[in-house]
Amino acid sequence: MDNCLFCRIVNKEIPSRIVYEDDLVLGFNDIQPQAPVHVLLIPKTHVASMNDVGREHGDLVAHLTSVIPQVAEKMGIKDSGYRVVVNCGKDGGQTVSHLHYHILGGKTLEVTFG
Amino acid sequence: MDNCLFCRIVNKEIPSRIVYEDDLVLGFNDIQPQAPVHVLLIPKTHVASMNDVGREHGDLVAHLTSVIPQVAEKMGIKDSGYRVVVNCGKDGGQTVSHLHYHILGGKTLEVTFG
Repeated sequence: MDNCLFCRIVNKEIPSRIVYEDDLVLGFNDIQPQAPVHVLLIPKTHVASMNDVGREHGDLVAHLTSVIPQVAEKMGIKDSGYRVVVNCGKDGGQTVSHLHYHILGGKTLEVTFG
Repeated sequence: MDNCLFCRIVNKEIPSRIVYEDDLVLGFNDIQPQAPVHVLLIPKTHVASMNDVGREHGDLVAHLTSVIPQVAEKMGIKDSGYRVVVNCGKDGGQTVSHLHYHILGGKTLEVTFG
């Protein structure tokens, strides 16, 4: 999608601090981090939100999820722990309409998350 | 696992308010909800945490993720929006060592989640 911020990051039209990349997914540092480690992990193909994930995205979602512990290890938070957050729609506070998984860590995270 | 709380809920040894069930996953209301809707969606098989998700769990993770919008629809929050949270380990605040996806909605969730 030409006007999607994250598609433009995938296409390297907009720079990002990449921490993980393969054929299917891209991980990069959030520009407004809520924790010492705050990575966004996204599919390279455009999927608007969690609501749009269906069985046809099975392989992609399986791969993306299996990459989460790899990113955690790379960022030094696999053993200390982390939080994965996906916001969907208005009440969820989704700000970019391209599916993204937040991975947060590097501190003891808040007990509440809603 | 005999002594795992969520395995015992899966086996109906401990009651829960079930909102979704199929062969692979179970969704039930969190007993300490942080939002008007707060469902825990778990694999029926024991996976300790996000750190333990590997390629061998691909089909399971793909299925579980595709169920999230179905649960959201059933709970009336698909269109209004929701947040999906997976806590892993100590810093993440994981309290039960059986992989669980929190699905929260029914209100405008907090802007911060770390």
